[in-house]
Amino acid sequence: MIQKLTSEERARQIASLRGWHAVAERDAIQRKFEFADFNEAFGFMTRVAIKAQEMDHHPEWFNVYNKVDITLSTHEANGVTERDIALAAFIDSITA
Amino acid sequence: MIQKLTSEERARQIASLRGWHAVAERDAIQRKFEFADFNEAFGFMTRVAIKAQEMDHHPEWFNVYNKVDITLSTHEANGVTERDIALAAFIDSITA
Repeated sequence: MIQKLTSEERARQIASLRGWHAVAERDAIQRKFEFADFNEAFGFMTRVAIKAQEMDHHPEWFNVYNKVDITLSTHEANGVTERDIALAAFIDSITA
Repeated sequence: MIQKLTSEERARQIASLRGWHAVAERDAIQRKFEFADFNEAFGFMTRVAIKAQEMDHHPEWFNVYNKVDITLSTHEANGVTERDIALAAFIDSITA
């Protein structure tokens, strides 16, 4: 059973990422992305989807045209875990 | 300049679709989908994305794991147009 991060661990891990912030109402992290157009936005989503499936850890996300908002949290831990940090780090790595 | 549908036209067109309803707060239509798993949900999204790009008319959508919520509206008309009905009909056709 995976444990959620303490608030200290979570803050430290968020600081190691790029542009992610804690969500106010729940134990989750979020980042908003903006691309040139829909083709680029959905291409990005496809890369994240393939990685998420490989990790068996999936995002909550919203897309409209060139914008993608991603929220990460671990359902079974009811909060942010190392899995979310790992997926966020991958996402950062493909948007460098 | 594309014109939005009148409320009568919109109601008639919604009735010709499957499972779509008018959104309460704005001039848009919405349908929620549930699939077996993430693979199936994202495969569906990919088919819709390719069609949307071809039509140059894109959805607003939210996905978490096997669930996909789609909202359609035409930005330049500030409401539901024939383009939304056409994209909704395509979406229905691949989820028969």
